[in-house]
Amino acid sequence: MWCNKSTSIGREDKRAPCRAARPHPRPLREVLPRAGCLLPGAARPRSAEALPAQQDLLLAAAFVCDAQYNRNIPFETSPQAVRLYYLYNHWTMQAATYFFVFVNLSLAVFEDPAVYPLPFLATSLVEVLCLLVFFSRLLHFAKVTPRNIFWKDAKNICLMMAILVALTDLIIHGALKICNITSVRYSRIMRPIFLVNFTESRQMRRAFRSIRNTLPEITYVFLLFMFSVLMFSLMALKLFGDRNLQTVEGSPYFTNYLEIVFDLYVLVTTANSPDVMMPAFDFSWWYSLFFITYVIINTYIFMSVFLAVVYNNYRKHLKNEIRKLAYMKRHKMVEAFNILKVKEGSEFVVKESQWKQVVKLVAPEISTSHRELLLRISDDEQKGYVDKKSFVRLADLLNIQVITMKIRSHPLERWLPHVYNSASSRFLRSMVRHKRFVWIYDVIILINAIFIALDEENPLISYAEWAFLSLYIIEILLKLYTYEPRTFFAKNQFWNWFDTLIIIAALVATILNAAFKSTSKYNGQQVLDIVFILRVLRLIRIVDSIQRFRVIMNTLINIVPTMLTFGGLALVVYYMFAIIGMEVFQGKIQFFAAGSTDPHALECGNLALKDSTFARAKYCKNNFNDIASSFIVLMELTVVNQWHVLASGFARVTHQAAKLYFIAFHIVVVIMIVNIFIAFILEAFFVEYSLEKSEVETAIEKKIQELGVGVQEEELLDGKLIDNMETTENNLEGDGIKTSRGLVFKIASKRYRTVDALLQRMFEAEIPSEDEGLSFDEILNLSPADLYPKSPTFDSAA
Amino acid sequence: MWCNKSTSIGREDKRAPCRAARPHPRPLREVLPRAGCLLPGAARPRSAEALPAQQDLLLAAAFVCDAQYNRNIPFETSPQAVRLYYLYNHWTMQAATYFFVFVNLSLAVFEDPAVYPLPFLATSLVEVLCLLVFFSRLLHFAKVTPRNIFWKDAKNICLMMAILVALTDLIIHGALKICNITSVRYSRIMRPIFLVNFTESRQMRRAFRSIRNTLPEITYVFLLFMFSVLMFSLMALKLFGDRNLQTVEGSPYFTNYLEIVFDLYVLVTTANSPDVMMPAFDFSWWYSLFFITYVIINTYIFMSVFLAVVYNNYRKHLKNEIRKLAYMKRHKMVEAFNILKVKEGSEFVVKESQWKQVVKLVAPEISTSHRELLLRISDDEQKGYVDKKSFVRLADLLNIQVITMKIRSHPLERWLPHVYNSASSRFLRSMVRHKRFVWIYDVIILINAIFIALDEENPLISYAEWAFLSLYIIEILLKLYTYEPRTFFAKNQFWNWFDTLIIIAALVATILNAAFKSTSKYNGQQVLDIVFILRVLRLIRIVDSIQRFRVIMNTLINIVPTMLTFGGLALVVYYMFAIIGMEVFQGKIQFFAAGSTDPHALECGNLALKDSTFARAKYCKNNFNDIASSFIVLMELTVVNQWHVLASGFARVTHQAAKLYFIAFHIVVVIMIVNIFIAFILEAFFVEYSLEKSEVETAIEKKIQELGVGVQEEELLDGKLIDNMETTENNLEGDGIKTSRGLVFKIASKRYRTVDALLQRMFEAEIPSEDEGLSFDEILNLSPADLYPKSPTFDSAA
Repeated sequence: MWCNKSTSIGREDKRAPCRAARPHPRPLREVLPRAGCLLPGAARPRSAEALPAQQDLLLAAAFVCDAQYNRNIPFETSPQAVRLYYLYNHWTMQAATYFFVFVNLSLAVFEDPAVYPLPFLATSLVEVLCLLVFFSRLLHFAKVTPRNIFWKDAKNICLMMAILVALTDLIIHGALKICNITSVRYSRIMRPIFLVNFTESRQMRRAFRSIRNTLPEITYVFLLFMFSVLMFSLMALKLFGDRNLQTVEGSPYFTNYLEIVFDLYVLVTTANSPDVMMPAFDFSWWYSLFFITYVIINTYIFMSVFLAVVYNNYRKHLKNEIRKLAYMKRHKMVEAFNILKVKEGSEFVVKESQWKQVVKLVAPEISTSHRELLLRISDDEQKGYVDKKSFVRLADLLNIQVITMKIRSHPLERWLPHVYNSASSRFLRSMVRHKRFVWIYDVIILINAIFIALDEENPLISYAEWAFLSLYIIEILLKLYTYEPRTFFAKNQFWNWFDTLIIIAALVATILNAAFKSTSKYNGQQVLDIVFILRVLRLIRIVDSIQRFRVIMNTLINIVPTMLTFGGLALVVYYMFAIIGMEVFQGKIQFFAAGSTDPHALECGNLALKDSTFARAKYCKNNFNDIASSFIVLMELTVVNQWHVLASGFARVTHQAAKLYFIAFHIVVVIMIVNIFIAFILEAFFVEYSLEKSEVETAIEKKIQELGVGVQEEELLDGKLIDNMETTENNLEGDGIKTSRGLVFKIASKRYRTVDALLQRMFEAEIPSEDEGLSFDEILNLSPADLYPKSPTFDSAA
Repeated sequence: MWCNKSTSIGREDKRAPCRAARPHPRPLREVLPRAGCLLPGAARPRSAEALPAQQDLLLAAAFVCDAQYNRNIPFETSPQAVRLYYLYNHWTMQAATYFFVFVNLSLAVFEDPAVYPLPFLATSLVEVLCLLVFFSRLLHFAKVTPRNIFWKDAKNICLMMAILVALTDLIIHGALKICNITSVRYSRIMRPIFLVNFTESRQMRRAFRSIRNTLPEITYVFLLFMFSVLMFSLMALKLFGDRNLQTVEGSPYFTNYLEIVFDLYVLVTTANSPDVMMPAFDFSWWYSLFFITYVIINTYIFMSVFLAVVYNNYRKHLKNEIRKLAYMKRHKMVEAFNILKVKEGSEFVVKESQWKQVVKLVAPEISTSHRELLLRISDDEQKGYVDKKSFVRLADLLNIQVITMKIRSHPLERWLPHVYNSASSRFLRSMVRHKRFVWIYDVIILINAIFIALDEENPLISYAEWAFLSLYIIEILLKLYTYEPRTFFAKNQFWNWFDTLIIIAALVATILNAAFKSTSKYNGQQVLDIVFILRVLRLIRIVDSIQRFRVIMNTLINIVPTMLTFGGLALVVYYMFAIIGMEVFQGKIQFFAAGSTDPHALECGNLALKDSTFARAKYCKNNFNDIASSFIVLMELTVVNQWHVLASGFARVTHQAAKLYFIAFHIVVVIMIVNIFIAFILEAFFVEYSLEKSEVETAIEKKIQELGVGVQEEELLDGKLIDNMETTENNLEGDGIKTSRGLVFKIASKRYRTVDALLQRMFEAEIPSEDEGLSFDEILNLSPADLYPKSPTFDSAA
């Protein structure tokens, strides 16, 4: 199981296995009594007395883990269900699901029309296997969830239908194939459903819900917009229809109403500006006012209104969903507390030992000292128990990435202390730490950039490349000599990792290329391409030297994980359109390589394209003949420019109605998806701008400071840490926490927080901390105070 | 003087003369002692005793008027300065300034290169006249303002410099012209300065300040973006440079670094997608990944980041400026209060008589009953005086457009009561009021739309047009018969006005067209065009029948006034670029009409354009040969598509460096101005979404309800008003306010509030009402809690 992106704070943490679900060997065995065949002997409880306590702990830990990762799969609290639930969330199960989802999607590469053709039998067997896996996964989920909740969830019904339809379709298609009848595999369009509904892609589902919720409002704006387009088209017909004007191609200008509507719709996307205006403009410059008015109203105002409506709805629904999540988290934590609570004086509390066991179960990988730190925060006065308020905070505490690190001396210092501490070595190290070292390398990078731009053929330049490569390698070696290697390659040292990987890759590729060049006749173009790209990528490092650039880059890096969700969203829509496109346009347009002698090479193998703009612009390779080409064409359509040429081209080889496919794509992708993407980036930036430390983070930091085991991030970055060792050490010794010498904590840098986590924190502040939280049903029924109350489905909170 | 758009709530009110500055005859004469030559006898005060009181009232009224219209010209409080200040704000003076600003700007139409050429002497005489007017206006302002404030204001210094430079330039140019030396009139670029700095275009100045304040932040993002473009260009050079690929035109593909940078910069604007990719894509589909990555990073992410940065800054600075305005208003009202206050018991108050006189001075045009209503709100308990808190609210009270209307019986009812109240007449009126009447006319409009689309030549259709026209006229007559005409044509009945004007214009134009057709050989194409446009515009009315569309339309209509500000902003930038463009490209490209026999007609009269994409696309009319053409070309550049073709075309006829002009235009207009425009529309929509009634409005409404003189807007719209007369009348009689029979008030519809007013109210809620307000200097020094503290200039609040 992959950790949920939205709540794990670390960027690298994204792919970190979920702690509760990948417990260390012992808990796993305890957790999986049914998997006893795999881990024999583990199924038997150790003692009849210990069992219920153990069971309670497991249940409580399941609740805390759910709260931590913002999952809200409701599970039955029976021992069997809890164990199945752990298994369901086990990372191997999740990974397998992801794997089969992608196998299922990638079948399009091998099915006819294929990039790499495989026989029908092979692909259909794989598909059946995938569907079986999906079905068993769904069955597993049904076992875990209470029956009434399972059947209320539209997601599950949808999955079942999809599996059924895919199987039926496959069987029919197979049967028809045997009888040599070709049929359309329409169920392939439904494959992305598995990606959306199976995986932990909560953000993707949220984006889809956002689209669904925005639909009523956007529809009215769209109708008004279309009304405006139709009105202007009517005006254009009356104004220009009888003028006998001609387009550049010599065809009559603005005489057919439907064509005018299409032309003016294209003008909204600006793709045929100013060409569509030129004949009228040539006739009289007054007519340009018509087009300018049109563009201002329809392109600038209406498109901005679309963005405003999409953005406003996005924000409204996001807020509601995050609020739901926050309530849900509180609810789960209270449930866990209620399982573990014992009466202590007048209030209910959780015993320290219980608390520790739960934390061990939930986050087995955190260090003892980290756990002690969290305990000290939760049990501030060291009373031996944790009260309710502090316990509820546990999920947040676990979510904050506290980096525990041992301040280690450099390995060389341990092995060769005399050499490492000699005067010349000290001088070298201070030199490397100096700012001018960075500057010198910045200058080297700039010189390198110039050399790259120069001609490769010159042997001198080719040698210079080797020189630069060695300079970079020397830099990394010097840094490794100066800084402690494990600190240098800490999880959050993005640029160190980046540098080193690029340099090593470049070294390997350059050597390979040189080897190819000297020994064989193979010109190694692919390797050379990689070398070129790596060389240029090296230059990016200069950005990190300039403070202002670093800030912008950090914000951008910060929103990358969530941007990947939009990649997923785009993938789903692209996939569906690609499948449809392939069914409709496959084979109609052929591409012939440059030297082809085919008589119809210039017309893309289709006489209908003779003298078309499509053929003249040499767009033959833009076709739907396989999934890769389809995706590239759809990308071009997303960029919008020249989409009318593509649309007209495909309409010529099939039917005028084919333009509807392209218009539909424009509406769905450019008006909806791209606007949601922009809305998301705007929101992400605004959240970044209004960023403050959360209450919980402040509490942890305060405690770290109190205990004197903190370290400032700046110190780490500048490598001052080791220089400060002497002063830090003294503070550590006297402390109650048994920290080993040189152990420090720090809160992970702001750089590695995801937008989702930030948003959640923003809205959490609105919930009063004393609030017990709403009941489970109440939470699910929360809806934005909006005009369009939606029916409360379980899906809407998943 | 035009009322300040930002505070007058009514949309129509926009052009209403400022009340305080257009006092009714008596105050005007009293106000203008210096203009005694114009109004003899007025300069003499009536009595030595009355003078100071009168003077105080004038001063207080000036403060209140300033507060009401959010002006903050600081004026000296000496009697002379106050009178000059009134004169300065007099509507004739403001109108004259506007007139000369536009005359000055429109000189570009007549100067060489001219649309309508005039001799140099004529244009330069007009220009000198304009400059003289500007100078005297500035001198007037200097007389009003305290000297130290005048000289601290960058705006004034800037104006003085502009006048000086323009004069010098004109003289030099004239002198050189006499010696037959042609020189460049570079000072023409500075003409928009007068538009920005002279007029009451606070929003335009705010937009410019917003741009200035955003510059540092946007510059860093832009540099990072350019770095990315340069890096990708380098990669492209290495990947494709040695492949011997060719573009569609047959020129070498991606071999020159600078050309690659330009091509990839164009790709960011999507204008050459997918053409720029095709050669590489034809070679291998893997290379398309390079371009897709490029587009995602630079077009989608960076352009969104630009929007985010611009939007964030826009919001931040807007908030700060509106907060300043709100403080300023409070400050002015307190000043006015302090002038008028007298001690009453333990607190200072303003006497009722004084209050009335001030209101009369500030808003002479409001009715006595309206004034009584305001007094009843300000002096809730009828104590005979207004306390400070209520007095300070006066400016807001005056800003709320309370529509006083007499419920009049229909004129026909008075003249021909028997006929009008007969059974058939009653039936007719109830029919017109019925919903089905609207539906029937909606159907008629739809049928009309179909007829418009059909062929004009058919005589049947031509007759049908007359039938439709009469149907519409009958509709209006019927409505006028049913509803009281003055209610029907009330200020805020937008659609009634729209309908009537369109129909009357169509009637006139159709008759004119028929007359032309039958009598002369002149085919009246212009008139026919207008007829066509009016016919189609009539169809818009159908939008108003659908509730949801009406809501969206209202929001759009609501933001029109502020959008005009952006029109002004665009005008300024366009003007500057147009002047530069004309100097550089004038005459290089010629347009030859379709039948031209010129041998170089196909190359736009310039051999350098032979075989260029520019000439092939027949773009010859896109040139900088006069200001109108320049504006159209700049509009095309704003729309972005094909801008690289224009840029390359103009670079061919001049120099490659000419591309910089087009890139600069793209950066300034598309990255800055268009984004600010989008930010503004987004903000306007969000404000509309979160709209609530203000505290003051609620107070007025409550009082209106209390007094039983209110009327619901819905009643008015549905025409139910007159039906309810009987019940309303009774309530009115017994009331303390001497309302004439049938007089009612209502708050102007939400539809007519400007975004600026809404924003201001939003932020005003944040200022505690007891707050005395900051001092004048403190207000001016308010700055957003941002990263870039700007130096406090007076200009920044003007």
